[in-house]
Amino acid sequence: MRLNIDRNQFLKALLSASKAISSKNPMPILDNVKLDLTEKGLEVTGTNGEITVRSTVPYMIGDKPIITNYQQGATLVNAYTLTEGARKMEGETISFDVIDNSVAKIGDNRTGYKLNCISADEYPDIVLEAVGKTFTVKRGDFVSLVEQCAHAAAKTAQDAILTAINLTLRDGTLSAIATDSARVATKKVKVDSELDLTVNVPAKSLLDIAGLFEGAKTIDISISDKQALFSFDNTVVSSRLIPGTYPNLSAAFPKVFNYILQVNSQEFLSAIERVSVLSNARDNAIKLLMSDEKIELSIKNREKGSANEEINNFRYTGERMEVAINSLLVSDAIKALRSEDIELCFQTESRPFIVRSPSDDSSVELITPLHVY
Amino acid sequence: MRLNIDRNQFLKALLSASKAISSKNPMPILDNVKLDLTEKGLEVTGTNGEITVRSTVPYMIGDKPIITNYQQGATLVNAYTLTEGARKMEGETISFDVIDNSVAKIGDNRTGYKLNCISADEYPDIVLEAVGKTFTVKRGDFVSLVEQCAHAAAKTAQDAILTAINLTLRDGTLSAIATDSARVATKKVKVDSELDLTVNVPAKSLLDIAGLFEGAKTIDISISDKQALFSFDNTVVSSRLIPGTYPNLSAAFPKVFNYILQVNSQEFLSAIERVSVLSNARDNAIKLLMSDEKIELSIKNREKGSANEEINNFRYTGERMEVAINSLLVSDAIKALRSEDIELCFQTESRPFIVRSPSDDSSVELITPLHVY
Repeated sequence: MRLNIDRNQFLKALLSASKAISSKNPMPILDNVKLDLTEKGLEVTGTNGEITVRSTVPYMIGDKPIITNYQQGATLVNAYTLTEGARKMEGETISFDVIDNSVAKIGDNRTGYKLNCISADEYPDIVLEAVGKTFTVKRGDFVSLVEQCAHAAAKTAQDAILTAINLTLRDGTLSAIATDSARVATKKVKVDSELDLTVNVPAKSLLDIAGLFEGAKTIDISISDKQALFSFDNTVVSSRLIPGTYPNLSAAFPKVFNYILQVNSQEFLSAIERVSVLSNARDNAIKLLMSDEKIELSIKNREKGSANEEINNFRYTGERMEVAINSLLVSDAIKALRSEDIELCFQTESRPFIVRSPSDDSSVELITPLHVY
Repeated sequence: MRLNIDRNQFLKALLSASKAISSKNPMPILDNVKLDLTEKGLEVTGTNGEITVRSTVPYMIGDKPIITNYQQGATLVNAYTLTEGARKMEGETISFDVIDNSVAKIGDNRTGYKLNCISADEYPDIVLEAVGKTFTVKRGDFVSLVEQCAHAAAKTAQDAILTAINLTLRDGTLSAIATDSARVATKKVKVDSELDLTVNVPAKSLLDIAGLFEGAKTIDISISDKQALFSFDNTVVSSRLIPGTYPNLSAAFPKVFNYILQVNSQEFLSAIERVSVLSNARDNAIKLLMSDEKIELSIKNREKGSANEEINNFRYTGERMEVAINSLLVSDAIKALRSEDIELCFQTESRPFIVRSPSDDSSVELITPLHVY
């Protein structure tokens, strides 16, 4: 295997593949990146067993030769060393030459590396073919789906399925839902597809993937039995799926509201931050008092003291009501909604309440109140 | 104790005092900031036993009233809570009112805190009087002294005195020296004083202090038996001293050099970074080969591979010579010198060598070579 390659393009592919390579790899072989020069170009692959990223550097981009003076072949090189070397070299073109399957000579006009490398046969077999049901989603929509739901997925795996975001495609709508039992986040986007499918993708994988397609307008998603495949241009990413049936949470969302508070997101967030200076890390409880005359946030902390805060700009419908809320969950929800104003809608003080934008019904968050005040 | 105070000035003083309050305080009482309203203004004090910071908010700044509607007194309030509260409040003026010595009511027109507070009598006695020998140094010079030497001080306290920077004032020159046994950093600045003194101040304290006097042109330094006091404007900082006689290292610096290499700092640092991709965390050893024809940096790592790098722009005086150097120590020294070009000057390949700027002799670093290649 031998080639000269444009350093910037090579580095871009190495950085993408490296996102799938974690410092806590289950197998030492996965500390390597696989380089495979085929008729498509230089395929650069990294995996951590959860997600796999393959970025392909083509021979030409437009009229510009990117890979020249080559001989096809494959090898494995330590991902960190190769990426850092390529990042720190200064030449426009890097030469890459594998000798005896055991040493890769990598150089430009001033730097010379000889990196130990391993036969590509040692690498696990990875299938990155778009088999199964395929549809296309706008990149911005995909990123919103992930970013507006991922915070609500469970971080640890008491029940593995709750670490996933459930994606359901039906009637031309792609819906995402995530829950950690204390809250549920949902987001819907339109998709031009008649497919009907539902799948559980680890939230952490989706966050990694959402960051990988900068510059893309659309992303192709293919769902098979074992994996979800995301692709655009020269980059393909696969994620394993979490088997099982995602809990049906639609019944948890109240339909009728007796108390509706509308506030400015930024003012409400600032007020939460100020009273939260005294918050208790155990449950982050604050009290929300709502009435026609005033909206007040307050907190009591036996050790530290107390705080209270009035909201100046609000619209409120309902009787006087007090409810204890987890300030962290409410802040997360408001931030995820990215709306200038938000509504908090309650049926009773003890039932889960929803947080939503008054002008955009594509995303709704459900939060369980606390029972401490 | 009662006052209304300009929030920005109060916050500035709280942030300064908080720099002396660490999360790992030796005594819970030191989690508090001491507020003492005297005829000078509001004295805001924080300490961690190593350094103490007192910042005083005056009653007036120019024509502008800063503290109004007051009654003198003192109290202790949790530093984190008070600082975060003052940071997040939005009013221009904060009212502060201690009730029964046990609760401080703090508020502006929208936020109200009631913070638990403690009698000021519980706070340790702290003396922040400028007794002893006093001299004045330009702020820029003081920051250079600290920043060009602190990296060479020992991080852990095998021998406590090596965690200090030794400051010596003699013949109108203030000299700083620090060593961790593998290297020595020195820096001199001119001071308008005829005092003669030497003192060991913990390097960590000096780094904290150097960041506290932004905006100052000069800093007054007072040295007594037990502490060093640094002051400017409304802020006074004290540091404990480390007793004992600092080792005399002047004999360690070679006077005659047989091999002198001059290079561009940035080019040399980049070359070190590139070969260090393969470095071994144990000793960070790289080999430097110097001759009239070429200057080469190289590294061998049994597990990872090897690298070599030629320096294009250099001036070299001496025979061909090879030396093993610790790349981290050499990089630290070059960065601390802040000079466009640097010189590496050797007497032999096994004796300590010096790193210095060819155009500025106020700072010199001595480094012990390795014996591995």
